[in-house]
Formats: sequence, C-alpha cells, structure tokens
Amino acid sequence: MNVTDLGVLLKSVDVGDEMYRVIRELYPLCRSITGNGVRETLRIIKKQIPLQIHEIPTGTQVFDWTVPREWNISDAYVKDSRGDRVIDFQTCNLHVVNYSVPIKRRMSLAELRPHLFTLPDHPDWIPYRTSYYQENWGFCLTHKKLMEMKDGEYEVCIDSSLEPGFLTYGEYVLPGQSSDEVLLSCHICHPSLCNDNLSGIALLSILAKYLGQISLRYSYRFLFIPSTIGSIAWLSLNEHQLWKIKHGLVIAGAGDPGKLTYKKTRRGDAEIDKTLLHILKNSGQDFRVLAFYPYGYDERQFCSPGFNLPVGCLSRTPHGGYPEYHTSADNLDFVRPQYLADTLLQSVGVISVLENNKTYVNQNPKGEPQLGRRGLYRGYPHGGVDDLALLWVLNMSDGSHALLDIAERAGIAFADVRKAAEALMESNLLKPIPD
Amino acid sequence: MNVTDLGVLLKSVDVGDEMYRVIRELYPLCRSITGNGVRETLRIIKKQIPLQIHEIPTGTQVFDWTVPREWNISDAYVKDSRGDRVIDFQTCNLHVVNYSVPIKRRMSLAELRPHLFTLPDHPDWIPYRTSYYQENWGFCLTHKKLMEMKDGEYEVCIDSSLEPGFLTYGEYVLPGQSSDEVLLSCHICHPSLCNDNLSGIALLSILAKYLGQISLRYSYRFLFIPSTIGSIAWLSLNEHQLWKIKHGLVIAGAGDPGKLTYKKTRRGDAEIDKTLLHILKNSGQDFRVLAFYPYGYDERQFCSPGFNLPVGCLSRTPHGGYPEYHTSADNLDFVRPQYLADTLLQSVGVISVLENNKTYVNQNPKGEPQLGRRGLYRGYPHGGVDDLALLWVLNMSDGSHALLDIAERAGIAFADVRKAAEALMESNLLKPIPD
Amino acid sequence: MNVTDLGVLLKSVDVGDEMYRVIRELYPLCRSITGNGVRETLRIIKKQIPLQIHEIPTGTQVFDWTVPREWNISDAYVKDSRGDRVIDFQTCNLHVVNYSVPIKRRMSLAELRPHLFTLPDHPDWIPYRTSYYQENWGFCLTHKKLMEMKDGEYEVCIDSSLEPGFLTYGEYVLPGQSSDEVLLSCHICHPSLCNDNLSGIALLSILAKYLGQISLRYSYRFLFIPSTIGSIAWLSLNEHQLWKIKHGLVIAGAGDPGKLTYKKTRRGDAEIDKTLLHILKNSGQDFRVLAFYPYGYDERQFCSPGFNLPVGCLSRTPHGGYPEYHTSADNLDFVRPQYLADTLLQSVGVISVLENNKTYVNQNPKGEPQLGRRGLYRGYPHGGVDDLALLWVLNMSDGSHALLDIAERAGIAFADVRKAAEALMESNLLKPIPD
Repeated sequence: MNVTDLGVLLKSVDVGDEMYRVIRELYPLCRSITGNGVRETLRIIKKQIPLQIHEIPTGTQVFDWTVPREWNISDAYVKDSRGDRVIDFQTCNLHVVNYSVPIKRRMSLAELRPHLFTLPDHPDWIPYRTSYYQENWGFCLTHKKLMEMKDGEYEVCIDSSLEPGFLTYGEYVLPGQSSDEVLLSCHICHPSLCNDNLSGIALLSILAKYLGQISLRYSYRFLFIPSTIGSIAWLSLNEHQLWKIKHGLVIAGAGDPGKLTYKKTRRGDAEIDKTLLHILKNSGQDFRVLAFYPYGYDERQFCSPGFNLPVGCLSRTPHGGYPEYHTSADNLDFVRPQYLADTLLQSVGVISVLENNKTYVNQNPKGEPQLGRRGLYRGYPHGGVDDLALLWVLNMSDGSHALLDIAERAGIAFADVRKAAEALMESNLLKPIPD
Repeated sequence: MNVTDLGVLLKSVDVGDEMYRVIRELYPLCRSITGNGVRETLRIIKKQIPLQIHEIPTGTQVFDWTVPREWNISDAYVKDSRGDRVIDFQTCNLHVVNYSVPIKRRMSLAELRPHLFTLPDHPDWIPYRTSYYQENWGFCLTHKKLMEMKDGEYEVCIDSSLEPGFLTYGEYVLPGQSSDEVLLSCHICHPSLCNDNLSGIALLSILAKYLGQISLRYSYRFLFIPSTIGSIAWLSLNEHQLWKIKHGLVIAGAGDPGKLTYKKTRRGDAEIDKTLLHILKNSGQDFRVLAFYPYGYDERQFCSPGFNLPVGCLSRTPHGGYPEYHTSADNLDFVRPQYLADTLLQSVGVISVLENNKTYVNQNPKGEPQLGRRGLYRGYPHGGVDDLALLWVLNMSDGSHALLDIAERAGIAFADVRKAAEALMESNLLKPIPD
Repeated sequence: MNVTDLGVLLKSVDVGDEMYRVIRELYPLCRSITGNGVRETLRIIKKQIPLQIHEIPTGTQVFDWTVPREWNISDAYVKDSRGDRVIDFQTCNLHVVNYSVPIKRRMSLAELRPHLFTLPDHPDWIPYRTSYYQENWGFCLTHKKLMEMKDGEYEVCIDSSLEPGFLTYGEYVLPGQSSDEVLLSCHICHPSLCNDNLSGIALLSILAKYLGQISLRYSYRFLFIPSTIGSIAWLSLNEHQLWKIKHGLVIAGAGDPGKLTYKKTRRGDAEIDKTLLHILKNSGQDFRVLAFYPYGYDERQFCSPGFNLPVGCLSRTPHGGYPEYHTSADNLDFVRPQYLADTLLQSVGVISVLENNKTYVNQNPKGEPQLGRRGLYRGYPHGGVDDLALLWVLNMSDGSHALLDIAERAGIAFADVRKAAEALMESNLLKPIPD
C-alpha cells in the first residue's frame, strides 16, 4: 500500500472515532511539562505505536534553559469551615494552577483571594493557568463559584511535589527509503484540555499507526513533547542530526469546528509551505494561511534563527483564536470526530504530495512526443483534463520543476499531475532525477 | 522607408481588403497537412512574396514523429437510393473527414451512421474533423441534413489517396542588417476555414510583402507550415540555426471581431512578451494577455522545453473560444477586413518596437545636461510630454535599460520615447550600445 | 539628549511658530539663482546655524553647465502717461520676470504687451516667471490690472544688472560619530513665495539648529542652494566625497495643508525609501508615495544616472499640485505653523529611524532564550505588544535584518522594536553588527 491508497482507505474507516477514543482515554490525566501524567499519557499512546520514551534528568542544561524539577500532584482542595470541598482537584485537574508548590494551611478568604483565578466573562468556565518557572501556588475556579464563597476561614491544601526527577517525552521514527526526515510534532503538557492538545496527540498517534503500514520514501519522526522546554531539550539532544529534517509540521488544535489554518515556516517558501498551500487550495474548503510569527507552538523553537528548520504549523482555529482556548470549555464536547478526521485526511494529503513530489526530465524535449501512437492522447476536448496534465508535465519537466510546481503552474490538482507523470514514465517519456 | 513610416503608410491603404482578397482566393482549396491543396496554397502566396517551397519525403524521421503518407482527394459523396448526392464534397470540402482513407461501397444508414459527424447544437453548421494518424474515414454534415436521411441503402464514395509523397511547406527569409531573426509562423493545413487560419496566412503574406519594401535591423523568417508535424519537421531541419531566433510570433485567428489576445512565451518575460504588452496597452482597445500553456498552435512546439524559444502567439479570440471555431461557420462572412487590418497594424507596431528597442548610454550622466542651450527644452508645462520623455531617456539610459523599459517605466508610448532618443542622439547626448 | 528625546522635546515647544517667523523674515527678499537676495537670505539663516557661505565665480564650468552672470535688481516699474506706477516692483518682487535684463524705455501698450504675463484663471494673482538662460525681460501682474491698462504710452524701467559675479550657496555640516552622511537639501532661489520654498529653508534651518544640540550617529550635511545650477555646481565641487552620502532628502513645500508626499529615490528601495514608508504608514495621517520621476526639485540632479544617490524628496502637496504654486497666492497665509511643525516632526521621526536602524545578532539563536528569568517576559496576553517585539527581534536578528526590516515584517512601530532591542542588549542577548 502507498500513501495515496492510504488516503482512500482512511476515508472508508471511522478514523475520526478512532482519534476521539484516544482523546477520551487521555482526557482525565493531569499532565504538565514533567511528571507522571506525561508518563501515563505516553503509555497510552504506546498502545498505538512503539514509542520510545526519553527521560532527561532535572538540572540538565539545554541551550539557555535548565530542565526543571519534576512536578507531581495527588490531591488539592479548598475546604470551607464546614469541611466541605468548595474547590476539588479530584473533580477537575484544571482547579490547580499547574506546577503549584505544596501548601497546607488555614487562611481567610482575603488571604486566599490573590491565589484564586476565574473568568468573569465566562462565569461557568474554569481557566487553565501555569506557573512553571516562578514558585507559586493557586486555584482556578468558575467565577460563579467564587461569587458564592463567603468570608471566613478556609483549609487550603495542595498535595504536590516538586523534586529532582525527569523531563519525559516520546519519540517514534518510521524509517523510509531515505534517511531524509519529515518531522511531526505535538505538545503533550496540557491537562484536561481536548483541542489544545489532545487532538494533536490523537492525530499524530493514529497517523503514525497507519503510516507504519505502508512503504515510505521519507523517514518520519514523531515527537510527543512538552511545550517549549520539550522542543528545546529535543533540539539540544538532536542538534547533530537536524540536517536530516527536510520538512516538518507542528500539529495542534486539530479537532475544533473552525476552518483549517496553516502558519508558514520562517523561510516562507519551503516545500512544506507550497505543499500546504496546494492541499488547502484544493481542499474544497475555506482555509487560512498565516505568515510566520514568533509566537504560538513549538514551531517557535524549530524556527529560531539558529535552526531555521522548514517546520510549519497546522491547526484548525489557531491558538488563542477561540473563547474556549485554555479553559474547561475545551472539553470532550468541543472537539468532534468529523473535524479530527478532516485534519488527519488533509495531513495525509500533505504527506502524499511530499512522498510523490519529484522532479522528472522529459526524454523527448524537442517538440511534443507523438502521444497518439502510445495510446496516451485521446484528443482535446474529448480527453479532458488528463491530456492537459500530460502536456504540462512534458512541457515543464526540464529538470527544474518538480511535480508540485507543475501542478501549481497548471492549476491542476497534484494527484492528476502525478497520474500523468506515471503514465509518461510507463511510456519512457519521463525519467526521475534521483533524490 | 523604415518600419514607422510603414505603419503610417498601411493606415492609408486598404490593407484589410488586400488581406481579405487573399483569403477569398484560398478559401475553396482543400488543404490538409500534406497534398496538393497545400501546394496550390503556397503557389497563391507566391504571388505576394518569393516563397521557397520545401518538400520532405514520407517516412522522414523528425524527432519523435515520422512524416506521414501524402493525402489527396478528388471527390467524395454519399448517394441515396435514387442516386442523389445527399453529401457532396464538391459543395464543401469540410464534408469529408480530413485524411479519410478511400472507400467505395454500398451500406445501410445504420452501418454508415458511426462515420457521420454533426453538431446538434448548431444544426446548420458542418463540423471540421481530421484523422491524420489513425486510419479512418468519415463524413461531416449539418445536423439538419442528418435528420432528413432516411433508412435505406447508400452509396458511399471517398476518392482519396494516401501514398508515399511529401510534406510541403513554405519559407521566406527577409534579410536585415543583423543575422538575428524574428520568426513569424502560421499554419496552412486547414481547408475551407477562414479565421483558422486563412487569416493568419493572409496576414503573414501581406506583412512579408510590405516589410520587403523597407530596410530592417533584424532578419525576418516567415513560415507557412502544416500544424504540429510541420513545425516539428521545420525544427528538426533547422535545429542548427535556432540560436538566431531572438523573437517570434505564431499568428492565427487574425480576422474575427473579438479583442486581441496575446499568449506569452514559455519564458514569460521575453522581449517579445514585453513588446506585445506595451503595444496592446497602448492600442486604445480592450485586450487579453494569457500566460503560456502547452496547448494551442505551433508555439507548443517552439516552446517545448528542448527549444524554449521566445515565441508567443497573437490572435484575436483564441482557438476554441468562439462557436464558429472548426465549423463551416468560420467562413468568408466571419472574418472582416477591418479586423484583419487591425491585427496587421498592431503586428507592425510590434515590429516597430523590436526594430527600435535599443539600449543607449547618456553621455552626460552627471546631473542633467543643459537642454535649453541645445534647443531641446521648452520648459514644463509648456513643452508637454516630450520634455518628460527627454528627461526619462536621459535618466534611465545608464546602459541597463532599453527604450522599451524606459517607455514602460515612464508610462509613455514607445514611439514618443524613441523620438526623444533620436533628438538626444542628434545632440550627441546619447549613444547606442552596439547590438 | 538623543534624537528620540528631541522628537519629544519638539512636540512641547512651538516649533511651528519658530519656523513661521523665519519665513516671515525671509519673505520680502527678492531672491534668484544668484545675487544679493541669496546672500541676504543666507545671512538670516546664519542667525540659526553657523552656515558656511560658498561663492562660485561666473563662468565656472560645472559639468554641462556654466555658472551664469550674477543678477541684481534695485527697482522696476511701468508708469502710465500720468507718471503713476501701474506695475511696481517695490510692492511685490514677483512683478518682474526673474533675471530680466535692464531696460528703460517708453513704448506703447501693444509693444509692451508680449512682455506682460498674467493668470486669466486667477485674475487677482501675480504669476512667478523666470528667464535665467535666455536674455529677456518682462513683468508679471494680476489679470485684473492688465484689463485696466489702457492703450497709450508707458514708461518701462527695469533697473537690474547682469554682470560677472558669483553663484552663492550655504552649507552646514554637523559631524556625527561616523563620517557617513545624511544629505538634506533645499532650494533658496525663489523670491516672495512661501511654500515653494521658504518653508523648506525654514524647516532645514530649525532642524539643523536642534540636531546641533544632540549627539548623532551620522554626520548631517545641510545644503541651501539655488535650484538646478546650484545642485549641479555642488555635485561638481563635491564629486570626490559623494561616496559618504548614505541617505538624503530634498525638502520643499513643507507648509501647505495638503497631505505629506514622499517621492522615492531613483533606486526605489533605498533605506531612506523604506524609512519614509514606515514613518508615513505609522503617522496616523493620510499620505502619498510616488515612484521616482525625472522632474521636480533637485533630486533630479542627485538621482541623475552618473550619481544615482539615495536621495528622495519630502513635501506636502507636490510641486505644481496646487493652484497657488508659483503665484503670489503662495504667501504668508498659505503656509501654516501647524503644517510646518508636522513636516518637521515627521522629518525628525525619519532621522530617528536612520540613527537607530542597526542590525543585531541574537546571541542565543538556538531556541528562544529564557526571557522569564531575566525579567523580560511577562507572558502573553498580559505583556501586550512588547513581548511580541522581543520575540520578533530575537527571531529576525540573524545578521541579515536591520531593526527597520523587523518593524516592517512584524507590523510594529520602529520605536517599539528599538525599545525591545535595547532591553535585549542590556541582557546581553543581542549584539550589534558594527557599522
């Protein structure tokens, strides 16, 4: 099976449901940039693909950063004077500011208040907050609940630990014919948030599983890493082999109902950029293309000037672009199997272009070859678009235009141009330039 | 006389009528890609210009193609049971599928039917059909006539021959000061069709006749060739001297009422492309410019990747863009002298730019020269556009801008820029870079 | 004080009034391309800045031109038969065609008439006319007055002299850290005309005065020169040091109510062009940008192909673009302090960009540096635009993007990008590439 057949296959199976089941299983875990939540997450992904788990010790220097202490948490609550849990980590892990230091103390509401975070504009939602690199503690809760809290004494408990340990991430390399690599990366550090980024984790897991079943031109490297510190750590450990990365995508926010968004690489005209543009233009859907900007997901690190890797970012609505972003409303209702499936299928379309985007040389470049006697030409207008695709491939295959260039120039979908190239190959009218 | 004077002259003579008379004389002949119809056509063109006739034997290998057997036809008909010719080649040569093999046989309408071609949407028009490279026979007729044909037996006769012979084409080279050439090509293989392409034949004949009367910078090569096989054959025979071709135009469909259309060379930014854009923008008419695409007329061959010659295509409505295309309605009523004349005059405008588009060097490049003491400057706003043309030519003539570049940059018609350059030359303020 | 502080300071003082007072003092003088009007003008400018006065003798060859005889005038009139001055130079120096040769003679109105110039469309305005390089004489007057002049004899007197003397201009160089120069030029040859160009003279005088109070990166060269012959003479005398000029602006028409207009350098993409575009886009005002054309002010000479200096032209309504242009209506009412001040402030903004537009190199180019532990990062969306400016500067500072490039790419005002760069410098995260 090749990647084009895979695209057809995936349309016939319920790949959206398959991804959604992964999300549902991962949803309850309390993830962070380190700790057991990440380990448990990677263990679940390992059910799909033979992931390799890496552990980097606390204190390891990774470029300008230091791997922090490992954070774990078993319980957290705020009890009122009657001993009732008015805020309870067990009901939702967003209730605790991620990376909160441990605390166990009685205090007045006035004393507690600066440590409470709400969203007054969305009084039923719990915000998501972190404090990775400044020692602090806090609770997130609905604004409604905050309004109900009465003056008086509260028992505040965060049963967390912040101790030397490890930064944990997962990596999976699918070898292809070439050692040239396609990098696919998602972040795994957010707790119970579905679109950002259980959707990305589910997409990469399922994509990797299916790609593992076909023969590939490129090698594919899948990263499941904590945001920022994770990509910086990975870059630091893999600096010697970054030259292999020929194309890359960060995938996040893959399951919301918004239109697909591609954020270009820092280079702006890399093959991955042209590929995404072609796929989205030919998707039949509305879409959005953004120039690179140095904010967002881990493309920030891959595209830092010292690396400048050809890595773009694919999402549906971009980060911060929807009210549910980084709140408890980014839940199992917010992501839908149909959008997950669409993002996956477009990603497979992208891979299909990358796998097949070769440069060929017309073996009969002086005038047109006589297609008719080779049974290739049915004569315009009877032959339709295929005849034109044949003529475009012949005319542009001078060694300096790859098939994607030809598809864009001709205004023909890549798949049709590829089919024309295959027909011409069979007639020995076209030969590929070796990789 | 130079080419600018020629443009003025042609506006005063009835050049449209002159072209139309050529078309009227050529209209009745049954042309094809080979045969006596082509020979007779070239004989008539020879009344205008001393054409050289080339004959290439059947079987000659020309790149990927082989010169086919020569086709000739003397009569063809379908007779009904009463012996009446219901289809008669003598009334219109479009009635026979071009290159039909000979046949003489009685058959039922049912047997004949797959060999009959009509245009149901235009029931009064006869379509034009060919079968050059697949042995076949057939008749074209109006849909109205087909509807009248009753079941019964018909006598079917095509008195044609398909035998070893020659591919015939005409060539005329007008020598100029330079051996650098401008290639002008038209196809001569269509039978009684006026716009496609008797209009092109007439235009090149009359243009060649008049250009023969003036002194020229470039040499001009006129080709009167059968489509596809003709240009491929010519390219094959002339491969050693293609380097001389500096600019070129395929001309076809020059007489219909549609707006002028220029299809760019494969290069897309050749001097001929810039020239056509300038001429059409300054024509005062609506026009159309198309990027190159590998379908259409013989520019397909000239622009194949092994040659990539700077050859564009000038027409009015492009091929296939009007309902009369390749039907009996492309007749003597469809082309009009006024449109023929306009296409010719714009072509002369193009040649006028090519002939005069030189690069000059300002001999006083440091500050402006004092134009006043040379009688060149009348002072803005009194002097109008000419003063500005002088200043533009001086300012841009640094050795890297030709006059056409200056005209485009300044938004001034080429003719005015050329006049300014001549005035500055006379004052020794400007010198040409030798060709 | 640096240039940014200067911008703040100038907003608080009445710089518009200061400039307007200069214009009011210079308005009565009868200037020309040579003569005592120019000398007196330069003497007044010298009250603001220590101008150096240059005198070039009549007959000096400057490229294609020759310094003309010096023109001076003490009186001129046309008296009617009763001895009344119907045209009187003493009331307005525009009444005499500039550079008129002396005359003292009685003549009929018919004989005088070809020497009288009016503006029929503006019957109350006196036109401004010159005849520098053709010996001639004439009077300019309102059309109303002309209509009142009766047939009869008139006494015509122009008490002028045209004798060997000097071409006079002023120059002021403000040394900066670098010998690289910014050229700022205005023309000083127009008599009682305020916008064209007392506004330019006033702007450069006051700008020079204030720039003299601050420390500068570039050296600034201010030219106060007669139009055309003045710039050509200056170029001729300074050809050996033109290489120092890194940026330049001709300033004229700085006080009318029209929107700001920038005319690009001949190069079209010089740093001064990018700077003006950025400043105008961020000015909060409507503005106009024109491509270079070889007409206008002295940028014609600076941008002649032999020099091709990076010199643009800043004005409000461009030359010839307002009815008052070159008439007595370009008077003390036509220019207003508020517009003068605005043009000056935008010019200071331009200088502020030029002074600070350096290229830096990110010292931690592999991944993002940890801004948080340096107190630089307050976390989006709380930190607002500054955080993004920090990230943009880090990401783009690869040695090939100057701060202005970064500001344009990021869509952030230059001042904010500069502040981000300074903060990063203080943290040793950024180092400048030496000039």
